Amino acid sequence: MAEYKIAIDVMGSDSGPELMVEGAVKALVANDDLSVVLFGDEERIEKKLAELECDRSRVEVVGASEVITNYDNPMEAIFRKTDSSLVKALAATGEREDIVGLINAGSTGALIAGSLRYVPAKVLKRPALAAILPAEKGGFICLVDTGANIDCNASQLVDFAHMGSDFMRDYYSIEHPRIGLLSNGAEETKGNKLVKETHALLKEDKELNFVGNIEGTNALTGDCDVLVADGFAGNQVLKNSEGIARRIITDIVKYAKMTANTEIMKLVKHLMEIYDFNSLGGAIILGAGKPVIKAHGAANADSIMNTSAMLLNIVKNRDLFYGKDNR
Amino acid sequence: MAEYKIAIDVMGSDSGPELMVEGAVKALVANDDLSVVLFGDEERIEKKLAELECDRSRVEVVGASEVITNYDNPMEAIFRKTDSSLVKALAATGEREDIVGLINAGSTGALIAGSLRYVPAKVLKRPALAAILPAEKGGFICLVDTGANIDCNASQLVDFAHMGSDFMRDYYSIEHPRIGLLSNGAEETKGNKLVKETHALLKEDKELNFVGNIEGTNALTGDCDVLVADGFAGNQVLKNSEGIARRIITDIVKYAKMTANTEIMKLVKHLMEIYDFNSLGGAIILGAGKPVIKAHGAANADSIMNTSAMLLNIVKNRDLFYGKDNR
Repeated sequence: MAEYKIAIDVMGSDSGPELMVEGAVKALVANDDLSVVLFGDEERIEKKLAELECDRSRVEVVGASEVITNYDNPMEAIFRKTDSSLVKALAATGEREDIVGLINAGSTGALIAGSLRYVPAKVLKRPALAAILPAEKGGFICLVDTGANIDCNASQLVDFAHMGSDFMRDYYSIEHPRIGLLSNGAEETKGNKLVKETHALLKEDKELNFVGNIEGTNALTGDCDVLVADGFAGNQVLKNSEGIARRIITDIVKYAKMTANTEIMKLVKHLMEIYDFNSLGGAIILGAGKPVIKAHGAANADSIMNTSAMLLNIVKNRDLFYGKDNR
Repeated sequence: MAEYKIAIDVMGSDSGPELMVEGAVKALVANDDLSVVLFGDEERIEKKLAELECDRSRVEVVGASEVITNYDNPMEAIFRKTDSSLVKALAATGEREDIVGLINAGSTGALIAGSLRYVPAKVLKRPALAAILPAEKGGFICLVDTGANIDCNASQLVDFAHMGSDFMRDYYSIEHPRIGLLSNGAEETKGNKLVKETHALLKEDKELNFVGNIEGTNALTGDCDVLVADGFAGNQVLKNSEGIARRIITDIVKYAKMTANTEIMKLVKHLMEIYDFNSLGGAIILGAGKPVIKAHGAANADSIMNTSAMLLNIVKNRDLFYGKDNR
């Protein structure tokens, strides 16, 4: 039954702990093999749990007296707010064998800093924030970095390629993930100074399956499994895609209202399933020892449910491939 | 009647001179007050013109024996291929008072280098490539740079802001264009090293109406009239928007076929009018003395017609505001 336990820090999100708890309970209803450990304000969590119908044998609550917010200095908060829900959730994820991963919708900076401190990978690298996005040709693309590392050098971008490659191999069972490098043209000669330097390094790296430069038009087409970019450029791809998709869907809704065509509203639902990045799940911290996922700060109960499903799926996928004993 | 004459270099595009000529003739049919000067292979142009019904009094043909292609070194080509259609079109645009602007669908590099040489602005600045994109809230956004200057410093970005501001004031009659700076967050503290440096300079610049950082999600929302970015990041915004829009429209077409709903095909037509960047017109060279527009290399007759209409509109707009004597 409940073979997979995930840690959820219910504090620090824009929407408040109640919605996070509701999302967790929805995830339990949707997934028989899931159980959760909720970290945060015990009283508020228990009150919300009492309101909802749920199997309490699959819910563990760990009280925490402090909250790390977006106003805190991430590094300082991780070291000073030791009774915060985030630090307790991270520490438990790092220490406890029964917890397979963690979800949080609060401070990204604190989550990254804390992952490195409490859920370290075997080989320590500067962590990166990846987004797992649906490719036009099917499957998924791991876009890394999406904003954790804004000013990068070429060797960091090579690290991102390795971390992305390992992640797509481990959690998506892609044997030799194709690595693409975001540039302003597909040709080898295109790119800014950083991209040209990185291109040369990636080409020489025999451990990677480097397929060359990818331009913006084809960023999410699916010509690579891992798309490498510095955090500034990667953030543009992620947020711009989100903005344009939201805009077109809004346009279609207006058009549907104007024409009073009900078929078009069905189309909107179909498009929302593909392009609503809020419901798609969150960003993954690469460089942590277990999957740590940052959900949107404005996440709603459904998106927390979807993020939980995403975490569950990638862990199951890994177990299928490697066996549970090799987590 | 034909008060506005534009120069069109019909060579160097991927689609061949015949389609360019066809586009020019379509533009003449659509706009009574337009006349054109076509530069290129005289024989092929005349043959195509003979096939099409058009008012020859509004078409001037200037023969050119050479073509500048994408394989030429732009700077070298501008100086050596002096009998090329592009150099002749640029020289005529710079010299002749009756020509209000130029369109080309060939080598972007040569067009930029040649504009600086043959159609210089009063104050010389390193030219930039701007895209004029429809804003979500209505009106247009001038995105600059979109790929002419890949590695930039902060003072260049400030130049882009000035050129974009002047352009939107002169050709779109916006008195104090709002200048936004593309960043990875709207907060002043966000950005890579280049963005932070540029932010400080823009804030101090009393000639500019700087409204702060704009993040990717809102790049094309319409919170600014000019969006400043280095050529690498700007290229991502432009091409990524194009890629996502194309992808969603393709999805809708598939959905329409699946459901056999004819209303949805009408919706596709509506979306194509807004989001088909190929038909929207081209990129504008900022820093030239007259409007010089680069149409897509894969432009078709309709997009050349639309690019001509765009050029005509911005020149007319300027004339309305400043009077024809102040061109």
